[in-house]
Amino acid sequence: MTAASHPASGEDRATLDNWQEPPYNRWAFSHLSEIVPTATVSRHAARPPGALARLEALGVAIPDLESRLEATYTDAFLVLRGDQVVAEWYRAGFERHDRHLVMSVSKSLCALVVGSLVDEGRVHTAAPVTRYVPELAGSVYDGPTVQQVLDMVIHVDYDENYVDPRSQVQTHDRSAGWRTRRDGDPANDYEFLKTLRGDGSTGVFQYCSANTDVLAWVIEQVTGNRYVDELSSRLWAKLGADRDATITVDPAGFGFANGGVSCTARDLARIGRLMLDGGVVRGGRGADASRDAVGSRVADASRDAAGAADSVRVVSRAWVDAIMAGGDPAVMDQDYFPGEFRTGSYKNQWWHMGNERGNVSAIGIHGQHLWLDPPTDSVIVKLSTWPEPDSDEWHLTQSRLLLEVCEAL
Amino acid sequence: MTAASHPASGEDRATLDNWQEPPYNRWAFSHLSEIVPTATVSRHAARPPGALARLEALGVAIPDLESRLEATYTDAFLVLRGDQVVAEWYRAGFERHDRHLVMSVSKSLCALVVGSLVDEGRVHTAAPVTRYVPELAGSVYDGPTVQQVLDMVIHVDYDENYVDPRSQVQTHDRSAGWRTRRDGDPANDYEFLKTLRGDGSTGVFQYCSANTDVLAWVIEQVTGNRYVDELSSRLWAKLGADRDATITVDPAGFGFANGGVSCTARDLARIGRLMLDGGVVRGGRGADASRDAVGSRVADASRDAAGAADSVRVVSRAWVDAIMAGGDPAVMDQDYFPGEFRTGSYKNQWWHMGNERGNVSAIGIHGQHLWLDPPTDSVIVKLSTWPEPDSDEWHLTQSRLLLEVCEAL
Repeated sequence: MTAASHPASGEDRATLDNWQEPPYNRWAFSHLSEIVPTATVSRHAARPPGALARLEALGVAIPDLESRLEATYTDAFLVLRGDQVVAEWYRAGFERHDRHLVMSVSKSLCALVVGSLVDEGRVHTAAPVTRYVPELAGSVYDGPTVQQVLDMVIHVDYDENYVDPRSQVQTHDRSAGWRTRRDGDPANDYEFLKTLRGDGSTGVFQYCSANTDVLAWVIEQVTGNRYVDELSSRLWAKLGADRDATITVDPAGFGFANGGVSCTARDLARIGRLMLDGGVVRGGRGADASRDAVGSRVADASRDAAGAADSVRVVSRAWVDAIMAGGDPAVMDQDYFPGEFRTGSYKNQWWHMGNERGNVSAIGIHGQHLWLDPPTDSVIVKLSTWPEPDSDEWHLTQSRLLLEVCEAL
Repeated sequence: MTAASHPASGEDRATLDNWQEPPYNRWAFSHLSEIVPTATVSRHAARPPGALARLEALGVAIPDLESRLEATYTDAFLVLRGDQVVAEWYRAGFERHDRHLVMSVSKSLCALVVGSLVDEGRVHTAAPVTRYVPELAGSVYDGPTVQQVLDMVIHVDYDENYVDPRSQVQTHDRSAGWRTRRDGDPANDYEFLKTLRGDGSTGVFQYCSANTDVLAWVIEQVTGNRYVDELSSRLWAKLGADRDATITVDPAGFGFANGGVSCTARDLARIGRLMLDGGVVRGGRGADASRDAVGSRVADASRDAAGAADSVRVVSRAWVDAIMAGGDPAVMDQDYFPGEFRTGSYKNQWWHMGNERGNVSAIGIHGQHLWLDPPTDSVIVKLSTWPEPDSDEWHLTQSRLLLEVCEAL
């Protein structure tokens, strides 16, 4: 293992038992959170909660909005119209600068990284996945194209039952470090993906979290870099983000692309803004300007002023347009969209609500939403901790609330 | 467990096996890095290394400085004179915005938090430790005062042999999550500290990492908050830090105060600056100004401009002066200071080099140094990954290099 390399899945990786020793310490001393659990020593001063006024500033008649946010276990709620925050609310104990796990909203972020590689001609959506990841030969991914993985139209023997220990999604969790390992579990997420099988059919939507990790593996093979680093350089570093995001990593150092990202509500809103802006971050920034005086923060100010003049493209308008247009409702089982959203669809790891407003959303279990409303040029972020992973009732309640906010804007 | 509380060491804490379920998910979804290993998705664009020019800008004749930095496994090297960075170097693969484990430099940070509580009259250094942590009754800490813990003049049956699995320091590591647990290990760091015994004597210096964790426990008991949060509010949030720091946490969520902090070289230099400034952060900041426009970075600029006019006190000048004056060399065994530093001493978790320049340093194994040079009003940070934890030879080589830099300034 070289000093700067990532902890490969071979014998030479840094582990809990060798990380303090050479040569592993050279990598581990600057990546300890990947090995030992860590807490954040925030550089932001804590503030008392008191965001109710920000909700009233919404200036629209949403009856009992705050109590409805509380009833749906909301931790953060934010409405961005244009580039103005018109409503913002955090529960007591969760602050504006706190990161929150976004679950499968992570999938939609991964798709933007894939899109940027498609734009560069380095990934071809019509190519079979095994062109990029030959390690998947013999698995369910031996045959399907990148586009089929993006749209999740592959039959996989994968039970996405979050509360059944015998389900593949729980084996997936254990392989990725999200649950305590059991004897016989795959050593890491790569190994888990290789074990997946199906009946060989494609063309019908099946929500399967493994698909996104396959996309992240494609990204790693094409770029030669870790997924976490590509997510940083292709998205987060261009975003003008307030804070770093984090992503959970498995014992091989592979980021859990399908659900492991944590970030602030405001930074997630920035992702929504770039979607509504056709793949561009307006006023984005590239590399930091250098700052010679540690005591001075003036250089920061000049960087910000300069940055405001720039726009940075993350992904092509064509990629974003395809997402905003939605997928094919005909391939969807009605079970996926309850109630009035029956004509919803899935495209490139984003959900289209199938309604006339053209709402598109990144959605995660336990109530994570990054919801786009093209008619009002608005983004709604809702981060929650529902007591259940999901149910028709929870999804309907939350989708209707978000829709009501859109209609009131 | 209430929604906002920390994961207490009782039955009700969030664990790897329950964190996705209510009520644990309410805390865990915003603290996942404390449970599952995580990597950072940086908001900073990566830059190619090329800091040699910054070393030449030092403008002083240090023969072969770069090769000497490389030979001592340096990852980051920074010289701050006044508030100007006059030299800065990073190895390939480690960047200015990367965090590095600072090992026992963490101890010196903890002492500043203790000092702030002493200033407020909430901790009395002459009081027995058990006044604040009655749980330590019956242990080696049943009797000694807070000051004796700060100065490490307590006999503890604790072998600080980092490479011997039978040593207490390795049991300490395992209790704190730094190594794989073994049957019979204490459940967490608190429980480990309670097991420590000694011969009852005080007054002779014995370097023992457990002392610092006792101080962190005192901080928690006095404030009612987690150590990580006090380290944030009393130090990091006042520092004008570029980035959050992190601290490793044990299964009870207790921060590893004696060695678990990771931060950037520049932020560590800011700690040195506040020491040379008598406990004050010049141009420091308090709470963030609110920013209403997510797309705009202008509010940041105004905050920075306003911040530059302010100074924020972290700890009293008296506390800093006591550290800068050093401890009593008479209580030190000569083994602690090799070569020409024989008159060195230890005071309030900082090392005094015992030389005429009055160099004071925070020091961590494997080559971490936050070195203060009062005659030139300078701070030197050196973050390294020596292949051995420590040895007289490594310490002498590194101390002499740092001294040579001071003399050349």
